[in-house]
Amino acid sequence: MIIGRLFGLGLGPGDPELVTLKALRLLRGAAVIAYPAPEGGNSFARSIVAECIAPAQREIAITFPMRPGPPPAGIYDNAAATIAAELDRGDDVAFLCQGDPFFYGSFAPIFARLAPRYRVEIVPGVSSLVACAAAAATPLVQRDEIVTVIPATLPEAEIARRLAECDSAAIIKLGRHAEKLRRVLDRLGMLGEALYVERASQARERVARFAEIVPASVPYFAMALVRHGRG
Amino acid sequence: MIIGRLFGLGLGPGDPELVTLKALRLLRGAAVIAYPAPEGGNSFARSIVAECIAPAQREIAITFPMRPGPPPAGIYDNAAATIAAELDRGDDVAFLCQGDPFFYGSFAPIFARLAPRYRVEIVPGVSSLVACAAAAATPLVQRDEIVTVIPATLPEAEIARRLAECDSAAIIKLGRHAEKLRRVLDRLGMLGEALYVERASQARERVARFAEIVPASVPYFAMALVRHGRG
Repeated sequence: MIIGRLFGLGLGPGDPELVTLKALRLLRGAAVIAYPAPEGGNSFARSIVAECIAPAQREIAITFPMRPGPPPAGIYDNAAATIAAELDRGDDVAFLCQGDPFFYGSFAPIFARLAPRYRVEIVPGVSSLVACAAAAATPLVQRDEIVTVIPATLPEAEIARRLAECDSAAIIKLGRHAEKLRRVLDRLGMLGEALYVERASQARERVARFAEIVPASVPYFAMALVRHGRG
Repeated sequence: MIIGRLFGLGLGPGDPELVTLKALRLLRGAAVIAYPAPEGGNSFARSIVAECIAPAQREIAITFPMRPGPPPAGIYDNAAATIAAELDRGDDVAFLCQGDPFFYGSFAPIFARLAPRYRVEIVPGVSSLVACAAAAATPLVQRDEIVTVIPATLPEAEIARRLAECDSAAIIKLGRHAEKLRRVLDRLGMLGEALYVERASQARERVARFAEIVPASVPYFAMALVRHGRG
């Protein structure tokens, strides 16, 4: 009996031209395409490669609730079972991931459920981290510097403690945590040097000094970049 | 007078299929191709896209000495002057970067010298960080975790201090520092969980448990991945 393979495809930050040749090849060859999608909305990962999906390819949208916090584990259990059924039938499944499959995102919990039983290949992608540095035209990290990626969802004191000792830091998942981050940056004397990048590489990309943004207007897919001595 | 544009092209970790469509397009359109190369050796960045370079494209190899430590600033001054002469002539220059242009590497010092005077566009690439996680088939970072990238070239005490408080860490630039890192991991009780990836995505890719490797045989392009509770 032939068992299908699962591909975790990193599709990059949003610009369809930032997809790799390998992701494109495996996407086109897969009988089934799976992707995360918000309840009642369009899948961002799917939108990156929408023009490359053929009508004959079956699609599985894995629907996530739109409220903050981790989704219920049952969503991943059900998604893994649905994908497993396709693999058992002998079909390859391409799971579409914005950015990179193993740099945050929703693929890791599905990988954890299926990797023990199926052949899974990960195709790394251009992460939001390097896409934001490119958009901001500022080196992320050089020479012997340390770079730290900090989710803005963490408690204020924890973010402050980590930022205080960084050479270079990216604070991700801003959204409704932007005001909190602004307080931290201000207190640490970093507000002047922090950069802000929203929707890197996409049509509505925006780059600004963090001090200039209105925190209430910040989307989830936004990042702050801080580097000591950036000046 | 027309002035050329400079493109910093991220070409990914080594597999020619992990190049993005955008990097490929800009590479093919550039009159001049520049890249770092070791003294008396071949350029790794160039090797990734060797088959896409046309005979009519002029090539500039920027030669770096093979000894450890930061290269003399004069190398970057000379490289920037050579590239500037091409731009002044009205030709576009594609600077080839393995991985991502702003995630370590030799492009940032050239960018710093030329960005004030020329139009420079950065094309982000698949970094070694996510390529190694893909090769090791292990999520780099999830949910609200913090991930830290630590050069192994730092002092032992500094590496230990940083590792002790990480959720997830990548220790890069191993080479002759592998024995030092082994001591640190052992002391922190992390040796059992640390993974080792060498030449991710390349023909000679190697993935192993860090505890199993022979430190003296570790190349510069190798990385250790540690994640608490990876188990």
